[in-house]
Amino acid sequence: MPRLVMKFGGTSVANLERIRSVARHVKREIDAGHEIAVVVSAMAGATDQLVGWCREAAPLHDAREYDAVVSTGEQVTAGLLAITLEGMGVNARSWQGWQLPILTSNAHAAARILDVNGAELLKRFQERHEVAVIAGFQGLHKETGRITTLGRGGSDTSAVAIAAAIAAERCDIYTDVDGVYTTDPRVVQRARRLDRVAYEEMLELASLGAKVMQVRSVELGMVHNVRIFVRSSFEKPEDIDPRGIPPGTLICGEEEIVEQQVVTGIAFSKDEAQISIRRVQDKPGIAAAIFGPLAEANINVDMIVQNVSADGATTDLTFTVPAADYQRATEVLIKVKDRVGYERVDGANDVAKVSVIGIGMRSHAGVAAQAFKALAEKGINIRAITTSEIKFSLLIEANYTELAVRTLHSLYDLDK
Amino acid sequence: MPRLVMKFGGTSVANLERIRSVARHVKREIDAGHEIAVVVSAMAGATDQLVGWCREAAPLHDAREYDAVVSTGEQVTAGLLAITLEGMGVNARSWQGWQLPILTSNAHAAARILDVNGAELLKRFQERHEVAVIAGFQGLHKETGRITTLGRGGSDTSAVAIAAAIAAERCDIYTDVDGVYTTDPRVVQRARRLDRVAYEEMLELASLGAKVMQVRSVELGMVHNVRIFVRSSFEKPEDIDPRGIPPGTLICGEEEIVEQQVVTGIAFSKDEAQISIRRVQDKPGIAAAIFGPLAEANINVDMIVQNVSADGATTDLTFTVPAADYQRATEVLIKVKDRVGYERVDGANDVAKVSVIGIGMRSHAGVAAQAFKALAEKGINIRAITTSEIKFSLLIEANYTELAVRTLHSLYDLDK
Repeated sequence: MPRLVMKFGGTSVANLERIRSVARHVKREIDAGHEIAVVVSAMAGATDQLVGWCREAAPLHDAREYDAVVSTGEQVTAGLLAITLEGMGVNARSWQGWQLPILTSNAHAAARILDVNGAELLKRFQERHEVAVIAGFQGLHKETGRITTLGRGGSDTSAVAIAAAIAAERCDIYTDVDGVYTTDPRVVQRARRLDRVAYEEMLELASLGAKVMQVRSVELGMVHNVRIFVRSSFEKPEDIDPRGIPPGTLICGEEEIVEQQVVTGIAFSKDEAQISIRRVQDKPGIAAAIFGPLAEANINVDMIVQNVSADGATTDLTFTVPAADYQRATEVLIKVKDRVGYERVDGANDVAKVSVIGIGMRSHAGVAAQAFKALAEKGINIRAITTSEIKFSLLIEANYTELAVRTLHSLYDLDK
Repeated sequence: MPRLVMKFGGTSVANLERIRSVARHVKREIDAGHEIAVVVSAMAGATDQLVGWCREAAPLHDAREYDAVVSTGEQVTAGLLAITLEGMGVNARSWQGWQLPILTSNAHAAARILDVNGAELLKRFQERHEVAVIAGFQGLHKETGRITTLGRGGSDTSAVAIAAAIAAERCDIYTDVDGVYTTDPRVVQRARRLDRVAYEEMLELASLGAKVMQVRSVELGMVHNVRIFVRSSFEKPEDIDPRGIPPGTLICGEEEIVEQQVVTGIAFSKDEAQISIRRVQDKPGIAAAIFGPLAEANINVDMIVQNVSADGATTDLTFTVPAADYQRATEVLIKVKDRVGYERVDGANDVAKVSVIGIGMRSHAGVAAQAFKALAEKGINIRAITTSEIKFSLLIEANYTELAVRTLHSLYDLDK
């Protein structure tokens, strides 16, 4: 029988009425002849309350105890959904991370899944036609016997890992949006939902601000080749088209994407600050001398642009940091001035990063050149450029963000 | 090092401020050189909310899932107390039922503790001076790997079972009263707190309405000879007398009670109804024919009085049921009239049961006779009498309850 993992986030299980709606989604798939594992998050707000209590108990709390407290949110939802399903006549059983078990690393509050045991689930699918309702976001560290959690959004990762363990045909991520869009529909009215997107593209889209899924879950999907389908938990039967295809976006390997477009989407982020270090000595070890202290200060450096030295002795180095860290980053750099050796630091915290993503870029030349031309025609100045195989990012003045995104969205035929 | 179990109920951990107060109690005992295992209930109200959700999800919910949901309440408190203790510089670690494990029967929602593994706790006391904070009310059924709960008030039983497992010197039950009283202080102003009470006496007092502790926990204490100390969670340092003795009641074996009084306490219950079956045929199997159907109807029968038949053919049978079940019990009896064979059923639902309890009764004759005389002098009619080794119970008209209790309290020198 075809096997599915269905994952529902906090908004989808926020109260008993919504949990009943989730149960109806599950029953629909059961009736369609699927074996089902459901992964649930905590009721919306529950995790925040638990986290708040931990902070109130002690500002610097032990992450092991934090995990023991916070993981209860998903435990409650899993039990309630199992009860609701049984009330509808569907065989169901809840599973906590330690019960399967889902084994993780020991990095409490940000653990990584190491192994999921799906054997018991497969046995119960066959013998009892039982739906497995699994508490997301959590696992067990084998050696210590302690509950771990995966960090915010970790239920997506739970779902994909379970889908891999039980060799599911698909992992359906039910969320409050009905898929992944070419760009933010609030900025570009004509943004379209993508039918399919490759893992690599999704990774670039997600980490750049299209916050549909936890980045780690997409990585995991890519490694284990789990087909992930993003769809709406508010979907109604009439949304499913006559061929039986529900609205949503399939995240899959590029071999599954037949009509490949050159550009898949435009992502952007306004909370960026640009820092330029002028006339840095161009010698080995300088990059480490600059970025080491920033990493120690827990400042996340994103775009890095370093040009080839013109005089063979000094060069300019530009990078971006979150706007909130701009001041702090500048201070760190001033402290290491003597050690690094540079003329001065300047920058701006009113910049935006616009990124163009598409697997098709690999085989198409001149994709970026088109963008430079189109933006120039609108009078948008490009402050810095970085490129990778399947995307390029441009740093521009923040005021021009929407204009730039709309221009590029049209340029690459994403308006349909 | 002397070892203690400390148990705190839902009111004592109702919010973070109270949890901090609990942590201070724990720290006091640590500073006094004790090894400590703390057992906590869920925050007051938390269990009710979880139970409410289960009922809302499905009126007839699976007890296994109910247990998975409801056990989270204690898990949260245990984690938060561990965090709070660590914030005070005390080494602490939380433990859920499945982690120790506390093994129970498979009777979900009303499981019985079978075995507690205290080995890891003892090791950590020694090696790390670590306080164990244990989620009460819950355990693990070994064969199914499922979480079980012990039923309302089960944390008391958890605490006593853990005290037995780690051979604790004492199990301190912190509650919202400061001990066990000779009778209800709301009825008799001069009711006194008992310094010591024997397990057997406590069992009679508890089941008769002095609702300080779960009955099962006292039974367990008696079996394993765990000294249980009932004390107030609102106790302040100045409440402890100069000899270092805190206010409270020690529940212990009778060999520890030096100055034994004949009568220890007077319990009473007003929610009783009396049913009398007149001229029942006096033949084998009749009691079963009457009480079987009542048990099937889930009606709890308490006092049973059957006198020796006068005519050798019929007799009168009197028993009590909870007042709320009076009507239903009568209906059950009318249904079985032909099968049982009796003349008529009569009764009253405005009766009260007053019980006099004391281990000393075993060796003192005439204790009950004194009561009959004293009550008669006050014009109180006794409707029925039952006796056991360490108590006797009287059924009287409900209006006379307070008068009877006060009369007996004075009669047996309990007024001090």
